[in-house]
Amino acid sequence: MHVTLVHIVVQPERIDDFITATAANHRASIAETGNRRFDVLQMPGEATRFILYEAYASADDAAAHKQTAHYLMWRDTVADMMAQPRVGVPHDCLFPES
Amino acid sequence: MHVTLVHIVVQPERIDDFITATAANHRASIAETGNRRFDVLQMPGEATRFILYEAYASADDAAAHKQTAHYLMWRDTVADMMAQPRVGVPHDCLFPES
Repeated sequence: MHVTLVHIVVQPERIDDFITATAANHRASIAETGNRRFDVLQMPGEATRFILYEAYASADDAAAHKQTAHYLMWRDTVADMMAQPRVGVPHDCLFPES
Repeated sequence: MHVTLVHIVVQPERIDDFITATAANHRASIAETGNRRFDVLQMPGEATRFILYEAYASADDAAAHKQTAHYLMWRDTVADMMAQPRVGVPHDCLFPES
């Protein structure tokens, strides 16, 4: 799997808006061909901090996600909710192997 | 889901041993009742750094994992491979909701 952890910090007053927008992105993303996980995590006790755990079968599938209407909608919707630039960190997934 | 990210740094000369031990833990863990993910990630360019991405249906399922023979075997096997104490960080999983 091709895995990326996206680390996000939102403005405190936009937490609910961010969750609403990201729920929609989650629902559409898990329906994509090649999607394996699209988990939305929130840090306990630090409600402004989130991780998107995104896994795709291949790098091509992951790249295709960035071209979808739902990703582009999410990107534009959440742009002014960020407290700082978000950081996507790709990882090598050793297991599962596919 | 009940999600924990376990951040691990191993001694450089023990990378292969760690991967072998963790592969066995992965295979047995994904067969547990309540397991949803047990992904083993390695940081590109920093081969000593790993994340275990563990998700269980409930906190009870996650706790039960810590009582399994394969977890206890892994824990003891990798104990002297660590370069520093590993850190497990629980997260609230907003989506998927179950």
